[in-house]
Amino acid sequence: MDNLTRLVEIEAIKTLMAKRVRCIDEKDWDGLASVYSDDCISWSFGADEGKSPPTIGGKAIADSTARVLTGLKTVHQVHFPEIEFQSDTEATGIWPLNDVLASEKDGKRTWMRAYGHYRQSYRKQADGWKIVEHRLTRLLVENGTDDIVSGWG
Amino acid sequence: MDNLTRLVEIEAIKTLMAKRVRCIDEKDWDGLASVYSDDCISWSFGADEGKSPPTIGGKAIADSTARVLTGLKTVHQVHFPEIEFQSDTEATGIWPLNDVLASEKDGKRTWMRAYGHYRQSYRKQADGWKIVEHRLTRLLVENGTDDIVSGWG
Amino acid sequence: MDNLTRLVEIEAIKTLMAKRVRCIDEKDWDGLASVYSDDCISWSFGADEGKSPPTIGGKAIADSTARVLTGLKTVHQVHFPEIEFQSDTEATGIWPLNDVLASEKDGKRTWMRAYGHYRQSYRKQADGWKIVEHRLTRLLVENGTDDIVSGWG
Repeated sequence: MDNLTRLVEIEAIKTLMAKRVRCIDEKDWDGLASVYSDDCISWSFGADEGKSPPTIGGKAIADSTARVLTGLKTVHQVHFPEIEFQSDTEATGIWPLNDVLASEKDGKRTWMRAYGHYRQSYRKQADGWKIVEHRLTRLLVENGTDDIVSGWG
Repeated sequence: MDNLTRLVEIEAIKTLMAKRVRCIDEKDWDGLASVYSDDCISWSFGADEGKSPPTIGGKAIADSTARVLTGLKTVHQVHFPEIEFQSDTEATGIWPLNDVLASEKDGKRTWMRAYGHYRQSYRKQADGWKIVEHRLTRLLVENGTDDIVSGWG
Repeated sequence: MDNLTRLVEIEAIKTLMAKRVRCIDEKDWDGLASVYSDDCISWSFGADEGKSPPTIGGKAIADSTARVLTGLKTVHQVHFPEIEFQSDTEATGIWPLNDVLASEKDGKRTWMRAYGHYRQSYRKQADGWKIVEHRLTRLLVENGTDDIVSGWG
């Protein structure tokens, strides 16, 4: 893989992840489904710890994400990754992330603010780069409930 | 636009945004003015909701930002964008952001911690890429007041 | 430096910083030592304010970081930098960052959540880009102690 091709592919994978997190937070579930391959294995919702089976395929991943996040405001932000290529069409990436979940009801906000890393694999298909495996490791998880107060913003 | 040119222009737009947020937070108002075109339309400070007219031009945008942020500590951080080119000299970008405003007085810190997306247009001029339109959409806004306590840092 | 080389070197420096913050947060001290040159000057732990001498060299920087962070959960996240090259093998960068330190004990979490900029210099050596000088400036530092409550995540 020459230097220019490598940079082009890295930028494509970064844009794929930018789309992924925006689609989650703007609840664009068709857009979210499109960033995963049909055979993508997602170790979310406790699957990593053996609490549930992994979710397979973009459509199922988007469906379960939609279900889990119903009624919540969410923020997912990703930061500089370490991306490595195993071939012209296969790559892996480690991404720092922070995420916020918030449920606002009766003047109270119940929230999670958490930090960790996504560990992913990618494959370049006819329709572009797709996520083919997805795991999450955590550095820190904070939870709380506060009164909603008005102010700036 | 060939691949190399595209990557060069994307990097230039990313550096423009890095400069924009640093200039806001370090209160470098001349630097901030320089990232916008003279005809830039900024839908800030309630303009999007019709509460006020948009602000036009880098100088006016920097002036109103300076006014609004007087006496406040601020943090603006932007994350991986989705950038698209309409021509060699025109582009649009969607940027995730988080921002913090804080007023520290009499042992109390009144703060906003918020999350959203910038939606911008860019034009390449003789003096480089400039922001020509700017909007903000919000995912989550938190406000509070806490005692200032000492600790690490 | 031609455009392609410049982009390749920028990507290498970004990956270096991605590795640096991941190694801190995952407590990989050998990995952390490897991102600095043997003569790197790090103005950390009060050195900038004259409270202590700077720390010199990757091994010593990793050792003091390990010591200071013993028993803490940490998160360091960096955002779009402004990188400039002084030659083919010398560069400087300004990086926005946010960091969280947390000590969890007896049902309480004592935390710092802070924001600022890293200001760094880099040199390209036979073994790749290394950090040769490192400073931190702060925008905002928050500290607190809260009950640990369970919830999402």
